[in-house]
Amino acid sequence: MDPTGKLLINGEWIISTQSGTFYAENPATSEELPTAFSQATSEHVEAAVGAATDAFAVYSKISAVKRASFLEAIAGAMERTADQIVERAGLETGLPDMRLRGELGRTTGQLRLFANLLKRGDWQRPVIDRADPDRQPVAKPDIRLTQTPLGPVVVFAASNFPLAFSTAGGDTASALAAGCPVIVKAHSAHPGTSELVANCILSAIEETGVPAGTFALLHGPGRSLGSALVQHPGIKAGGFTGSVAGGRALFDLAVQRPEPIPFFGELGSTNPVFLLDEALASKNEAIAQMFVGAMTLGAGQFCTNPGILVAKRSDATTSFCELAASLIAKQGPQTMLTSGICASYREENSQRQEEVSVRVLAQAPNVNGNEAQPVLMSVSAVDYLANPQLQEEIFGPSALLVLCENDEEVQTVAASFHGHLTCSIFAEEADVKASAELASTLQNKVGRVVFNGFGTGVEVCAGMSHGGPYPSSTNVQSTSVGERAIDRFVRPLCFQNTPDVLLPDELKDANPLGVLRLVDGEWTTKAL
Amino acid sequence: MDPTGKLLINGEWIISTQSGTFYAENPATSEELPTAFSQATSEHVEAAVGAATDAFAVYSKISAVKRASFLEAIAGAMERTADQIVERAGLETGLPDMRLRGELGRTTGQLRLFANLLKRGDWQRPVIDRADPDRQPVAKPDIRLTQTPLGPVVVFAASNFPLAFSTAGGDTASALAAGCPVIVKAHSAHPGTSELVANCILSAIEETGVPAGTFALLHGPGRSLGSALVQHPGIKAGGFTGSVAGGRALFDLAVQRPEPIPFFGELGSTNPVFLLDEALASKNEAIAQMFVGAMTLGAGQFCTNPGILVAKRSDATTSFCELAASLIAKQGPQTMLTSGICASYREENSQRQEEVSVRVLAQAPNVNGNEAQPVLMSVSAVDYLANPQLQEEIFGPSALLVLCENDEEVQTVAASFHGHLTCSIFAEEADVKASAELASTLQNKVGRVVFNGFGTGVEVCAGMSHGGPYPSSTNVQSTSVGERAIDRFVRPLCFQNTPDVLLPDELKDANPLGVLRLVDGEWTTKAL
Repeated sequence: MDPTGKLLINGEWIISTQSGTFYAENPATSEELPTAFSQATSEHVEAAVGAATDAFAVYSKISAVKRASFLEAIAGAMERTADQIVERAGLETGLPDMRLRGELGRTTGQLRLFANLLKRGDWQRPVIDRADPDRQPVAKPDIRLTQTPLGPVVVFAASNFPLAFSTAGGDTASALAAGCPVIVKAHSAHPGTSELVANCILSAIEETGVPAGTFALLHGPGRSLGSALVQHPGIKAGGFTGSVAGGRALFDLAVQRPEPIPFFGELGSTNPVFLLDEALASKNEAIAQMFVGAMTLGAGQFCTNPGILVAKRSDATTSFCELAASLIAKQGPQTMLTSGICASYREENSQRQEEVSVRVLAQAPNVNGNEAQPVLMSVSAVDYLANPQLQEEIFGPSALLVLCENDEEVQTVAASFHGHLTCSIFAEEADVKASAELASTLQNKVGRVVFNGFGTGVEVCAGMSHGGPYPSSTNVQSTSVGERAIDRFVRPLCFQNTPDVLLPDELKDANPLGVLRLVDGEWTTKAL
Repeated sequence: MDPTGKLLINGEWIISTQSGTFYAENPATSEELPTAFSQATSEHVEAAVGAATDAFAVYSKISAVKRASFLEAIAGAMERTADQIVERAGLETGLPDMRLRGELGRTTGQLRLFANLLKRGDWQRPVIDRADPDRQPVAKPDIRLTQTPLGPVVVFAASNFPLAFSTAGGDTASALAAGCPVIVKAHSAHPGTSELVANCILSAIEETGVPAGTFALLHGPGRSLGSALVQHPGIKAGGFTGSVAGGRALFDLAVQRPEPIPFFGELGSTNPVFLLDEALASKNEAIAQMFVGAMTLGAGQFCTNPGILVAKRSDATTSFCELAASLIAKQGPQTMLTSGICASYREENSQRQEEVSVRVLAQAPNVNGNEAQPVLMSVSAVDYLANPQLQEEIFGPSALLVLCENDEEVQTVAASFHGHLTCSIFAEEADVKASAELASTLQNKVGRVVFNGFGTGVEVCAGMSHGGPYPSSTNVQSTSVGERAIDRFVRPLCFQNTPDVLLPDELKDANPLGVLRLVDGEWTTKAL
């Protein structure tokens, strides 16, 4: 099943050559793939936002259980089309078959996670404060609180997760779960994959009878389509995963609108890893193996890739470095996602290696085409602290070891960090004092603190948080992974003295959904 | 107890005449009040933010129960100083004694609401997903989620609530509850009241032993102090209640920082009120009385003041207008908060009355000094829809009745609204169809839908939402009143495979706080 290159608007596949067409590239061969993809014009933006606005009036009001069936139908359609999706995604991204099958499973898992959350029902955090007409000096009104969807959402697909953070990925799944129609701005590196997945969403729309305008897929390389979408008055929120430069530019547009909107961008993160004394002394081999696995996973193209290691100079650290270096030197070639990403990776690594204070500890053998060359560098803590640029992410399998002379330097390096998605602390019982101090400092810097492991392999569950202080996220109060990702697309809505028949189900006296509610200060699933 | 005019920084009262001094004005007499108030310099900003940053490291980690005692101690100190606070606030704001005593009670009530929330403990929404080492294809890690405070917060005091939305008001109370130190930028219209309340906070700091840098009070009329605070890298969030122009300017600074921060501004709202047929026919006298009471309450200086009424032309509407007009004509004089507010009120009313399409239905008798003249105007729906300026707030006791020819016009007017804090629907059983349609439209426009009442008298409770789509709020996902106001000052923080001893209490296996947690998808207060 080859893609057609069309745009999906209001349930129709539309071809348009007015603004020109573009082609996807196979990063493994640097060859263009055959299909010519349409580029959306401003008329397409109007049509998609108009359809989403109309759809919102209906889609936001259908029952959560029906929205759950819609999400499950998308997951089912993706599983039925898995072979074609994985094949096309492999051509467009260079990612291996097994990784893509795993990512497809993660994507359908995310859709089902939100379906289950909708069925559990407590995501709206309903509250009821009953009236007290006899209260002095004034009667107390009946006050009830729920969460209501924001409206049409634009989702920017990510290059590094063609499935899990793209067309039907976490942003789309959580926005659809919340009751918001979604317009996906496809990533130009994998437009065919996007189309195949959009087709699964279209078949789920038809299967479950939700409005056709609930989902749209638009193509447009460059920044004009994304800018137009985020600035459109009909768009009420945005979700994005990508670079600091791209995400910040869109965030700036979102907040400079006459009506500013929430814009949830997951941007850069170097995910600092602290290797404490006893952990390194007792487990340096195991940690070195785990580390090289994490840093080279998916050619290092993960937001949670460990890019900075911090350790005190010691014999154990030397052993760790030697082992990591020998493992890195043995790494096989891995194609990066796009020729542009590969070129940036090489340039940024060269620049870093030109710093006089930076030493290359290990580098994988020479590579061809768009293949990544994993590299481990080191720098002293003093030099690291003098050069803030060394904290910034190099997207790919590149890591920097910061060597400290003493515990104070370790703490100073920790205190110097700006925001990151995750940090890791490798610690044994004997490290408890240092790890407590570090955890206390680092929890103000990140969204997730990991012990004795790396941040890669983000678990999709109720308790996950994938976000953090800027620049890891444009909105420090949000997560883009896990159940709480739905919070990004809702807002509080209060009803005062409202007739029961006009209340949403989760606030009705009888509690027909049986959800957990805070009633007069007590949590209960009972009817009033 | 006269105020001294000093700034409060890190537990010390500081006098500074370097940037000049200013005086408060008694709006009832237009006379300057005696105390000269210090103006904060950039050094004071540095000192206050530095102290807050240091305090954060300690204050954010003390137990919620201890933070609750601190809030209760502030409330107690305010009650002990109530007479002096109310006297000074009366001089500075022109608000009557009874209103100020009520507002003081509301303020201490808010402090105790958050103290109780801290004791209930579920505000951090703790989640635990336990590990499963046997899961295939990869082991499941132990993942635990809580909410952590953002860091030092700047609170901009409001002119119209010298107590409840100022120094120890809702923003301060919710930020302190969350674990964030607060720097209050006092309102220049009531600096003495601010000082007296700040002194209560200082005595609570001393009584409960929280760090002195947890609270600061700075004075500085004009925009430079506020701009400096919101742009300071040590400040991590802002709270504001005031005008659209002032709030938007600060919001713009907050989001344009190198590290953008959340800025929660409650701005303008006209709080549309819909009077449906049967309600007007059967209860037009009662509604007219309630309406005139609500629109003139506090000289109309409430964010929830009803500024727009919408009704179909009918005999009942005519009767309603006649009665409302006669009640308005009988209103006694009420001093507005400042001479600037009064001048703007008069100018904006004059401008509106010059519109050829606008008719004055009633105006209170001539007034003196800084007194407000309540006014009710009317306009046809067609003219209203042609003139978007008529939707904007005139801060004070001014309301506009939009007269519609039919139900379609009523719905068109409803659909035309931008964001407001509240809307009201007056409806009887016979109005159910129209009220259902209206409620469905209006819930996308506001944060609170009120039936058969006005939005004034915002109940402080778990279920309240005081916020809404722009321009009623700069952050549509937040509320500045009620328990959920604490959500503005926290962010999600996740712990992965973390030793129990290093987890915050709400996430420890034993659940020592006994709070409600989502454990493996089930809500429970049990230990693991």
